[in-house]
Amino acid sequence: MNEAAAAVHLDAMRVFGIDCGTEVTGFGVVEPDLSGREPRLVCKAMGAIRLKKTKTTAERLEQVFRELTSELERWHPDAVAIEEVFYSVNAKSALKLGQVRGVALLAAACLGLPVAEYAPLKIKSSVVGYGLAKKEQVQFMVARLLGLAELPQPTDAADALAIAICHIHTAQTLALQEPRQGAAR
Amino acid sequence: MNEAAAAVHLDAMRVFGIDCGTEVTGFGVVEPDLSGREPRLVCKAMGAIRLKKTKTTAERLEQVFRELTSELERWHPDAVAIEEVFYSVNAKSALKLGQVRGVALLAAACLGLPVAEYAPLKIKSSVVGYGLAKKEQVQFMVARLLGLAELPQPTDAADALAIAICHIHTAQTLALQEPRQGAAR
Repeated sequence: MNEAAAAVHLDAMRVFGIDCGTEVTGFGVVEPDLSGREPRLVCKAMGAIRLKKTKTTAERLEQVFRELTSELERWHPDAVAIEEVFYSVNAKSALKLGQVRGVALLAAACLGLPVAEYAPLKIKSSVVGYGLAKKEQVQFMVARLLGLAELPQPTDAADALAIAICHIHTAQTLALQEPRQGAAR
Repeated sequence: MNEAAAAVHLDAMRVFGIDCGTEVTGFGVVEPDLSGREPRLVCKAMGAIRLKKTKTTAERLEQVFRELTSELERWHPDAVAIEEVFYSVNAKSALKLGQVRGVALLAAACLGLPVAEYAPLKIKSSVVGYGLAKKEQVQFMVARLLGLAELPQPTDAADALAIAICHIHTAQTLALQEPRQGAAR
């Protein structure tokens, strides 16, 4: 799953994080800013797609697909990052969540974007430094890492930003582990 | 979920059944033929989308979406029928199945097609007359109801045809229960 992380050059890496939910799906766009003295991460966008309860399942999925596609086309990310399967939910919730997740993965695939998946523990570890961190801790650290004046809202958008940050951190770690390009020439 | 069944005039009802699976997704197209002395059902098409194991999840979902969309555009059904959530599977399988199901529902929604959902018990009752019928019994009865010389293959396609037949049977039952259009005028 880290092919997507390794494939893109770090300074150009704009990552679109998606936090899928059956009622609200959050998204957040993060990229490194290397222009200053110290490299830092910046938030380019965040938001949440709220599904109308009056709609049928098929209509809701169409809404998620169209809105995500529209945001992906708007922000032109280099990669999409998404939370990995969360196994502890029951089968009924898992199927419903799977439907939304399938549509989100499809939106990325239709635009030819690489997708990276990260387990919840890995995302929290990457952002807070602790795998069992609470939602508020994630929100706080996301705001801090991205230099936001306020806590990112709603928490679905904060989680999506956390997933995107996790992907950039992973890519940076992978880049450090690999032999430098050109150094051997 | 039976709005779709009630909305379409019976003689014009062509139904596209989908049997979602994480490895193979079957489809089948059924419509009533009212030209003979006795009304009967005919199979216009059937097939199966086999997902390549070498592909990523996102690529597989794209394959399902594109192939289903292509078949839907080819056969111009009046409605899509799909199996309802099957709760007894575990959460991991449910999420994977949900991803495929979400993409199938999306394909119908993107083409503005109404979707009807039926529980497995209801589908088997409608086709075999027994809710706990085995796969082979479903295949046999599908072949018989559609006047096929051979058993429909693979079983995924047979199941998709069964779902489509269930939808037509349901629509016919609903039509009998409703006051006739025009009769009151």
